[in-house]
Amino acid sequence: MARRGLLIILSSPSGAGKSTLAKRLMAWDPSLKFSVSATTRAPRAGEVDGQDYYFRSRNQFQAMVRDGEMLEHAEVFGNFYGSPKTPVEQAMIAGRDTLFDIDWQGGQQIKQAMRSDVISIFILPPSIAELERRLRGRAQDSDAVIASRMAKSEAEISHWAEYDYVLINRDLDAAEAELRAILTAERLRRERQPGLSEFVRGLNKEFEAR
Amino acid sequence: MARRGLLIILSSPSGAGKSTLAKRLMAWDPSLKFSVSATTRAPRAGEVDGQDYYFRSRNQFQAMVRDGEMLEHAEVFGNFYGSPKTPVEQAMIAGRDTLFDIDWQGGQQIKQAMRSDVISIFILPPSIAELERRLRGRAQDSDAVIASRMAKSEAEISHWAEYDYVLINRDLDAAEAELRAILTAERLRRERQPGLSEFVRGLNKEFEAR
Repeated sequence: MARRGLLIILSSPSGAGKSTLAKRLMAWDPSLKFSVSATTRAPRAGEVDGQDYYFRSRNQFQAMVRDGEMLEHAEVFGNFYGSPKTPVEQAMIAGRDTLFDIDWQGGQQIKQAMRSDVISIFILPPSIAELERRLRGRAQDSDAVIASRMAKSEAEISHWAEYDYVLINRDLDAAEAELRAILTAERLRRERQPGLSEFVRGLNKEFEAR
Repeated sequence: MARRGLLIILSSPSGAGKSTLAKRLMAWDPSLKFSVSATTRAPRAGEVDGQDYYFRSRNQFQAMVRDGEMLEHAEVFGNFYGSPKTPVEQAMIAGRDTLFDIDWQGGQQIKQAMRSDVISIFILPPSIAELERRLRGRAQDSDAVIASRMAKSEAEISHWAEYDYVLINRDLDAAEAELRAILTAERLRRERQPGLSEFVRGLNKEFEAR
């Protein structure tokens, strides 16, 4: 019996290191599939359609929602964001785990829809001063954008208690090791290893043949 | 708020590497406390009272059971085995995790009694041929003892599906890494980190002070 892929939700306020950690996890385990979000916001410099996001018009996006093609979606700062359903379902059937870099609204919707196939992880910054420093370090956003991101961060952090796992990103290497441990452990859960029944049947046959 | 210690149950048929893996885990994390079992069986060569087992007479053992001093106990091959309760409770209060090297009967009793504070891990051998090879490799038991251990192994393995996590010990280093991952991940579960509420309160104060 093949193993169904897991959905791994990674949420955090911007600046807590979520995207960097997601990239590191993908490099560690190439079998992981990253869920590329669809959005109606304009591409930033360097962003590639189909890789960073699927860039869609409002009409296209709303048609996808209407046709049931979105696993979750939400409006943030006047733009729509959502996770297309088809690639996720294909990965699950193929036994590949999918990584979602999404906010609490998306996480909540996926959890409601998919229940036992979902594990959710919240990443906290070590401090708000550090969070703001990291946001400003990117140097690509105006003060007004930073201010609104900080307000959004406060709202995002208020949802930490809805997650299965919580970690504090004081150090990227340590946080990456913790994420690897969570994935490794979740894959060792009995109910996530449908092949075990067959393996134990093999052991029992060996006992009988002695 | 202090964290309550976890109870970590490690079960497997003899020869699957459980005791070696338990020792390695203790070396990796010296904060782990090993639950020394009490037994009425005679000490083997080299076994130290209070370290390998608490060696007790049948009368002493039965008095402990009667006085509610055993977290679990069972009779195996005519001898009694049990886990004294006091050291476990002390470790839990001190926030230290306790490791139990016990069989499915003990594991089941502890799980019934302690519920959410327990994680259970079953270790399978890669094959029965390998299990028997490891048992004979110890060269300390007679053929009759080996035969009865093999029968007990078959019974023990039949309980694999009652455990939270299952791993196959094909290689000690890999199995040790998997056990470490399970412990690391379980400690990152939100409900196992009572200090997080206070940490997030600190972040919120920082937001207010901006």
